[in-house]
Amino acid sequence: MEVIRSNFKDNLSKVCEAIEEADFLAIDGEFSGISDGPSVSALTNGFDTPEERYQKLKKHSMDFLLFQFGLCTFKYDHTEDKYIMKSFNFYIFPKPFNRSSPDVKFVCQSSSIDFLANQGFDFNKVFRNGIPYLNQEEERQLREQYDEKRSQANGAGSLSYISPNTTKCPVTIPEDQKKFIEKVVEQIEELLKNEENESLELEPCTGFQRKLIYQTLSWKYPKGIHVETLESDKKERYIVISKVDDEERKRREQQKQAKEQEELNDAVGFSRVVHAIANSGKLVIGHNMLLDVMHTIHQFYCPLPDDLSEFKEVTSCVFPRLLDTKLMASTQPFKEIINNTSLAELEKRLKEVPFSPPKVESAEGFPSYDTSSEQLHEAGYDAYITGLCFISMANFLGSFLSPPKNHVSARSKLIEPFFNKLFLMRVMDIPYLNLEGPDLQPKRDHVLHVTFPKEWKTSDLYQLFSAFGNIQVSWIDDTSAFVSLSQPEQVQIDIRGTDACLISFHLQVKAAVESLFVCCRAHVK
Amino acid sequence: MEVIRSNFKDNLSKVCEAIEEADFLAIDGEFSGISDGPSVSALTNGFDTPEERYQKLKKHSMDFLLFQFGLCTFKYDHTEDKYIMKSFNFYIFPKPFNRSSPDVKFVCQSSSIDFLANQGFDFNKVFRNGIPYLNQEEERQLREQYDEKRSQANGAGSLSYISPNTTKCPVTIPEDQKKFIEKVVEQIEELLKNEENESLELEPCTGFQRKLIYQTLSWKYPKGIHVETLESDKKERYIVISKVDDEERKRREQQKQAKEQEELNDAVGFSRVVHAIANSGKLVIGHNMLLDVMHTIHQFYCPLPDDLSEFKEVTSCVFPRLLDTKLMASTQPFKEIINNTSLAELEKRLKEVPFSPPKVESAEGFPSYDTSSEQLHEAGYDAYITGLCFISMANFLGSFLSPPKNHVSARSKLIEPFFNKLFLMRVMDIPYLNLEGPDLQPKRDHVLHVTFPKEWKTSDLYQLFSAFGNIQVSWIDDTSAFVSLSQPEQVQIDIRGTDACLISFHLQVKAAVESLFVCCRAHVK
Ligand SMILES: Nc1nc2c(ncn2[C@@H]2O[C@H](COP(=O)(O)OP(=O)(O)O)[C@@H](O)[C@H]2O)c(=O)[nH]1
Ligand SMILES: Nc1nc2c(ncn2[C@@H]2O[C@H](COP(=O)(O)OP(=O)(O)O)[C@@H](O)[C@H]2O)c(=O)[nH]1
Repeated sequence: MEVIRSNFKDNLSKVCEAIEEADFLAIDGEFSGISDGPSVSALTNGFDTPEERYQKLKKHSMDFLLFQFGLCTFKYDHTEDKYIMKSFNFYIFPKPFNRSSPDVKFVCQSSSIDFLANQGFDFNKVFRNGIPYLNQEEERQLREQYDEKRSQANGAGSLSYISPNTTKCPVTIPEDQKKFIEKVVEQIEELLKNEENESLELEPCTGFQRKLIYQTLSWKYPKGIHVETLESDKKERYIVISKVDDEERKRREQQKQAKEQEELNDAVGFSRVVHAIANSGKLVIGHNMLLDVMHTIHQFYCPLPDDLSEFKEVTSCVFPRLLDTKLMASTQPFKEIINNTSLAELEKRLKEVPFSPPKVESAEGFPSYDTSSEQLHEAGYDAYITGLCFISMANFLGSFLSPPKNHVSARSKLIEPFFNKLFLMRVMDIPYLNLEGPDLQPKRDHVLHVTFPKEWKTSDLYQLFSAFGNIQVSWIDDTSAFVSLSQPEQVQIDIRGTDACLISFHLQVKAAVESLFVCCRAHVK
Repeated sequence: MEVIRSNFKDNLSKVCEAIEEADFLAIDGEFSGISDGPSVSALTNGFDTPEERYQKLKKHSMDFLLFQFGLCTFKYDHTEDKYIMKSFNFYIFPKPFNRSSPDVKFVCQSSSIDFLANQGFDFNKVFRNGIPYLNQEEERQLREQYDEKRSQANGAGSLSYISPNTTKCPVTIPEDQKKFIEKVVEQIEELLKNEENESLELEPCTGFQRKLIYQTLSWKYPKGIHVETLESDKKERYIVISKVDDEERKRREQQKQAKEQEELNDAVGFSRVVHAIANSGKLVIGHNMLLDVMHTIHQFYCPLPDDLSEFKEVTSCVFPRLLDTKLMASTQPFKEIINNTSLAELEKRLKEVPFSPPKVESAEGFPSYDTSSEQLHEAGYDAYITGLCFISMANFLGSFLSPPKNHVSARSKLIEPFFNKLFLMRVMDIPYLNLEGPDLQPKRDHVLHVTFPKEWKTSDLYQLFSAFGNIQVSWIDDTSAFVSLSQPEQVQIDIRGTDACLISFHLQVKAAVESLFVCCRAHVK
């Protein structure tokens, strides 16, 4: 189901219930862009270390907005031997909720926007009706603001008036405001005398004048009247004064407090869903989900930490159990029988032998997706497909048991090897980011860092290294690349012996631990 | 009328015709945001110099996207004594047009987006169907790319192969590609022998393989075949080879060139409208138009120059004659009789005496706007209203002539004093940016630069300076502000004599030419 600002509050309990009852959850995000720096492929260089990859994504991807969040919950029905799924498609937008709330700026990348536009993505729904959110620090600040305002309003003294010479005595009223304030006091005396009228609306006035009124009244009438600022349709702020006894006064304060609590909840908005996911401790599935995890934490939890090990810690709080279906499909025993691990292809492949399509039905009152007619690229649908892929692959693992099992649950030991390992896109020799400990450190002393003039093409590199047999080129930018030789011992070969090249070039051995620089200037033969 | 990507080409001549025949043009832009730095009011400080203001807007406003451009053309019909107007509302989006085109990133500010969303702005139209554009440098580069590709394709030698050892002799084919290339050559020999087949589609292959094919074929078959890369529905690129004689070959080249020219025009897109406006030399009207002018130049012409004087030069090329209705309304003789110069209020005021509402009709085939039912905030409508305001004000100037004139044309000497002066928002003592020469330099030695703890409020400043009579406060950020005293000679007063303040503070006289620092630490009395 579609969840937008206008139906969010009414459906939140439904969402929480779905999370609580689920065996596992699948998520997916859509972003306003991927990379604001180098080209995407340079962002994901084949010989990045996990730390480098984390730093690049943090630096170049976090200014985009996660504006659609797909959540699909799967609950296994043992009697019917099928999964019941509930799918939610949340539209997200940081609508400023009051005058002092953060005015979020986010970047859009035209290629990503264009891609989504071609899929029929509804941007109006995001921008007109997206659900707001706050991260934990913003939530804390807003709560403090409310608390402060309340304690000031309750205290006898001045209201938000922290001044060099705050006094509990008459306020100093600037000469040109004296008339204005006198008139207000007259009106109030009138109100207090007159038995018929219960309240009095003052004319709209400036913030400074409102402050003077608050100060004057809290000193002159510490009890017996209630002073409140309202906003007109025209966004003008005006003060309303009403006669109240102590009880009425308390009742109003409580009412106000309840209203503030609700406003606060509204402002925290979609982050409450993320908190519910985090608190559930449920297994969370995603496909190629590193960016989704980073964005979710960054937008709804806290700014991303400075280094990878801290990121792993934060992630273990928000998502204690993760499983990446792209990593799973690229690992034994799936690796051999699955050629293409892109989500759409994977889903198709897993409908065929030796796999079997899972039995999944939408819960009552939830719309169902049809996987045969390809749906538009929408987060809720992608989360759903991801869930299907996980179920097929998990069940396949059951066929190795004796006796074989048709259903492997999300709690089975069989899938534990895949927990908390996130797929590292296009990294040649490190399959995953390990969230539970240090990362793999492959030997890289056969990987050369080569720089050259920007006119060079891949074919020039093939030619230059033709004596070394098969090579792999991983572009960094247009004047450098990593060149991986097939055998480590080849680095010993004297580069000047090769049949290249008119232009001087520069090789650097990129080892995992320390870097050995080999500078070499080869001349024309 | 609404102009989007799909109907842009068909309507461009209509747009150009409207510009050519017009007496004057009115423009307006909608942006994805206003300021990515300080709060809007700090961005437009009351004591900015024009240079400072330009620098701030350049730094903090140019990363936003101008995504709707309103153009309204007005042509006076002497026989009927009325204006005929044509209004165009362009949706703009930098859709990437090919693999090597710039992938524009732009910033969105949630408050601006939210504002537009509340006005019913259609973001889908922008992102799905916005007209692309290129600035002059991008256009030049694209043209060069095409030229280069063409000259390489025509030359006998290798295609885009600039390598240390380019040869006119057989290409070095890497060992693992030899089989592949041999098979291609076999297929071509087959094609050339076989009289029935005219062309041959090769299987999709990698870019490197395509390059090897081009190189091999241009060396092996300098004439007699035509080689071309096409893209399949699945975005896979494959090569098509056809038998051609010399004439056919030329015809194809010409066809291709015409197609390329059209692609280039499509890519230049909306910038062609801006060129048409620039080339027309017509008077261009806007309301509070500094940001519109800056964005238009930045997005469709060239990155904004480093300093204000260069900006003035560039502006005189793109918009040789500008008139800002907000500046006009704030200047004599209008200043005295117009209280509120915001566009909507101005339009209402100018319908009443001593002004008279202008006679304006939509041209045939153009939709008309209704000013009595307030239209949504759309660039085309705002441009229209701006035009109406200009006409009313210009005609009003005619009433001072003897004999009075009802109609004052866009070419009249009466409006020349308002040319090329752009309204400077919220600057207290410099009414406009002068595009035709140096700017006004008001005396500012009664303006104090005050810094203080961030708890301070406007009222604290009023109290602190209460001895100085009336002051004006212009906030810079939350620990500083400019305080303008009503009389310059007051700065002489010894600050320590005032009845303030517990906390040390720091005053700085902000003079237009040099800054005099007055440091002062006042202690408790
Ligand atoms: N000089 C040169 N640079 C290249 C070439 N191919 C790629 N690059 C650079 O390497 C970066 C990554 O390239 P690639 O992996 O092909 O991905 P893409 O740019 O996203 O298509 C590009 O942005 C270029 O700067 C090439 O043939 N020659
Ligand atoms: N310390 C302090 N800073 C202020 C106050 N009012 C405004 N500011 C600062 O000055 C900036 C400009 O303020 P203002 O002109 O009121 O515009 P606004 O922030 O856009 O509503 C704000 O962003 C604040 O940083 C105030 O009363 N006290």
